[in-house]
Amino acid sequence: MRDVFIALLSDFGTRDVYAGVTKAVVARIAPRARLIDLTHEIPPGDIRQAAFRLWQALPHMPAGTIFLAVVDPGVGTARRPLAVAAEEYFFVGPDNGIFTYALARLKNARSVVISPMSPSSSTFHGRDIFAPAAGMLASGTHLERIGVEATDLVRIPWPLLSRESPKRLFHGEVLFADRFGNMVTSIGHLTRLDSGMRMEPWVPGEWAALEFPSARLRALLEGGRETPIVRTYGEVPVGSPLAYVGSDGLLEIAVHRGSAEETLGLASGSPVDLSWE
Amino acid sequence: MRDVFIALLSDFGTRDVYAGVTKAVVARIAPRARLIDLTHEIPPGDIRQAAFRLWQALPHMPAGTIFLAVVDPGVGTARRPLAVAAEEYFFVGPDNGIFTYALARLKNARSVVISPMSPSSSTFHGRDIFAPAAGMLASGTHLERIGVEATDLVRIPWPLLSRESPKRLFHGEVLFADRFGNMVTSIGHLTRLDSGMRMEPWVPGEWAALEFPSARLRALLEGGRETPIVRTYGEVPVGSPLAYVGSDGLLEIAVHRGSAEETLGLASGSPVDLSWE
Amino acid sequence: MRDVFIALLSDFGTRDVYAGVTKAVVARIAPRARLIDLTHEIPPGDIRQAAFRLWQALPHMPAGTIFLAVVDPGVGTARRPLAVAAEEYFFVGPDNGIFTYALARLKNARSVVISPMSPSSSTFHGRDIFAPAAGMLASGTHLERIGVEATDLVRIPWPLLSRESPKRLFHGEVLFADRFGNMVTSIGHLTRLDSGMRMEPWVPGEWAALEFPSARLRALLEGGRETPIVRTYGEVPVGSPLAYVGSDGLLEIAVHRGSAEETLGLASGSPVDLSWE
Repeated sequence: MRDVFIALLSDFGTRDVYAGVTKAVVARIAPRARLIDLTHEIPPGDIRQAAFRLWQALPHMPAGTIFLAVVDPGVGTARRPLAVAAEEYFFVGPDNGIFTYALARLKNARSVVISPMSPSSSTFHGRDIFAPAAGMLASGTHLERIGVEATDLVRIPWPLLSRESPKRLFHGEVLFADRFGNMVTSIGHLTRLDSGMRMEPWVPGEWAALEFPSARLRALLEGGRETPIVRTYGEVPVGSPLAYVGSDGLLEIAVHRGSAEETLGLASGSPVDLSWE
Repeated sequence: MRDVFIALLSDFGTRDVYAGVTKAVVARIAPRARLIDLTHEIPPGDIRQAAFRLWQALPHMPAGTIFLAVVDPGVGTARRPLAVAAEEYFFVGPDNGIFTYALARLKNARSVVISPMSPSSSTFHGRDIFAPAAGMLASGTHLERIGVEATDLVRIPWPLLSRESPKRLFHGEVLFADRFGNMVTSIGHLTRLDSGMRMEPWVPGEWAALEFPSARLRALLEGGRETPIVRTYGEVPVGSPLAYVGSDGLLEIAVHRGSAEETLGLASGSPVDLSWE
Repeated sequence: MRDVFIALLSDFGTRDVYAGVTKAVVARIAPRARLIDLTHEIPPGDIRQAAFRLWQALPHMPAGTIFLAVVDPGVGTARRPLAVAAEEYFFVGPDNGIFTYALARLKNARSVVISPMSPSSSTFHGRDIFAPAAGMLASGTHLERIGVEATDLVRIPWPLLSRESPKRLFHGEVLFADRFGNMVTSIGHLTRLDSGMRMEPWVPGEWAALEFPSARLRALLEGGRETPIVRTYGEVPVGSPLAYVGSDGLLEIAVHRGSAEETLGLASGSPVDLSWE
C-alpha cells in the first residue's frame, strides 16, 4: 500500500493539546497515515500567513499529501468546511481563503463542503470535522463521499506586487520575518540564471515571465536604504544588509549573521522595491 | 499487527533534546510504535495542569494508547514510578497524582510500581525508567511483567467546583489560558442540548446530572463583570467578552478575536460563577 | 525490513515551515523512514551547542540512526556538505565542526563530500542537499554513492576542562541552561560509584579515568559560592542550590524547585570548579 502523508498546519501552538488531539483523531481513522507538522505557530487567525506557508510547502510534499490546515477565526459561524482535490494533492480546512495561494499552483481543483458525521463542538472543528475528513481521505474514501460539491470558494488577495516606473521595476511588500530575522518579500517568484534572474508571476499567466541581469538590480527599502542583490549571506561583511533570491524564489532581505527584522526595522507590510541601479 | 500509539506529555520543552531522547529510547524497544506529542510545554513541575491535559486528550486517543507522561518534580526521591492499565489504555509516569483526572474517566485500573531494568540517572527517569516501560508495553509485554502491584496511588484534588446559593448556581475557578488567551474554567463538564445545557460531575456519580435552560444563564467574573453564554465567538461583536461551552465540555471565557487573558485580567485561580440572570 | 530512524536537529525553529519541508523531502525519498525531532531550537548559528546536543543524544539512538543536523551559518559559501558513517550511525550536515563531539564517541569514521543531485538554493541546503542525502542513506544507498571521499573535516574546540592546583581539581565552564534553568557544565563525564565518582575524559585516551570520593567534593561557582555535590534535587531544601552528576554524566548546577540560571546569575561561559572540601 502506498504511504499516505498528512501535512498539518495550524495556529494551535504547542503548549495546549489541540494539535496532539487533532493528530489522534486522524490516527483513529487512518492509523497508518504519516503525519508531518508544517507548523502550528501561525499567528492566531492569520489566514494570509497560513495561505503563504501552504504555498511555500506544496512543491516539496510527497505526491498524495493531504494538507490539514486549520486557521479558523470564523469557527462556529456559517463559513463552510472544505475538502479539495487538485492534481495529486488534497486540502482540508475552512473556506476562508486559506488555500488560495496553494491552489493557484495546481490545476483541476474539485471541492466539497464536508458533511459532518457526528455532533461537533462549535469551537474546535479541527478535531471534530477537519481531522475526521482528512482521516477518511487518507483511508481511501473518495472526495465525493466526504461532502457535496462546493463552488465559489472564498479567495484572499495576493500579496502586493505592482509594476512601477521603468526605474522602479517592481513595488512589493515585506510578508513576514522568519526565525532568523530574514524578511521574506512579495517580490517574485524569481529563479537565478547564469547571468541574471527570471521572474514569473504568482498567478500563472498573469504576465509573461521576465528576465533581467541581476548585476544591475538593487533592493530599495523604506527610508531610502539600498542593498545589493547577492547570491548568499557570505558575500557581504558580517553585520551588513543584503538582498537575495530566497529558497522559495522570493526576494529576501537579511543581515549577515544578524537579524534584518531587528537591525533594519522592517515589519510585515513594509514597502520593498526592486530597481535598476 | 495492530498499530500501537504512544502519547507523550511532559514539561521537557523542546529546546533541549530530552523529549527527542525519550522518544529514541522508546523506538529502540518498540520501533513500530507510533508517537504522538500531546505537549512538552507543561509549566515545569505543574502536575495539576499535566493531569488536566491528560483528562482532556483521553477521549480522543486510539484504543490501546499508552500515555507516557513525565512531569516529575520529585525525580530521584522515594516517589514511585508507575505503570497503570485501565480499560483499553495504559499510563506510565511518576506516582504524584498526574493520572488522577484521566483515571477517573476509566474503570478497572490495575497499577504496578515499575522495576527498573538497568541503573538509572537520578534526574531523568523519563529516559531511564518511563520510556523503557512504555516501550515494553508497546511491544506487548504484560503489565504484571513490568513491576509489582501498586496500591494507594497518590491523588491530587479536583479543581474547585462548588454549589452555592440558588442564585449563584456553581462557583468555580479559571484553570489556565490556552494559546488564544481563552480561559478554561472548572465549571463543567457541560453538554449543549437543543434548549439548554446538561451538566455532569467531574467524578462520575458524585451528583446526578443537572439540566438547565442556557438562555437564562450568565457567567460572573471577578470584579462583577457578567458575560452571556453563547454558542460561538461570532455571536458577540469583535472585542467583546463571551462565555461558552468549550470543546472539552468546560465553561470557557473568551474575547471575540482578542485575548481574555490580556483583556479581562483573568489568571489561573480567578473565581468564575455560573448564575441565573 | 529494518526500521530506519532519522534524528533531526537544526536551528530552524518551528514557526516557519523549514523543518516540516525538510522532513517532507526526506519522506519523498524514504517514505518508511521514522523521523525523530531532537530539537529545532538551537540558537541560530550556534554550532557548539548543536555539536553538544548530538553528543548528548548519540548513546540513546537506535542502531542505524541517521543524524540530519543543520546549523549552517556558512550556507552558500565554500563550506562542504558532508555525509559521515561511523560504527552503526550516519551523519549528514555542513562541514563546520557540528559533528566533532559525537564523532569522538565513535570509531572508524568515513566521510564524503555530498555531490548535489539537482540545482540547489544558496540559502537552504537543509532542504536541497542534506535532506536528499539523508533520504538516500535511509533508502539503503551506500555512503560512497552519495559523494567523494572527504578528509580533514573541520573540528571545533572542546569545552574548557583543565587540571588546576591539587585543591581545585578541575576548572570548567557552564555550557548552557536547560529549560528548567539547570546549568550544564563541561566538568565530566562522570559516573556515580557506590562510594564516590569516576571521571573519564571527553576525548577517549586523553587521560586515564580518575576516581575520587564524592563526599569530599564541592562545586565552586563565580563569586566564591560553594555547593555540595548531592544525588538529586530533593536532598537540599526548596530554593537551595545544588550540584550533581547530570543525566549525561556532566556536573550540573541547579536550584531545588527553582532556576539556577535566574537565581545564581550563571550563564554560558561562567567558570565552575570541582574542588576538595
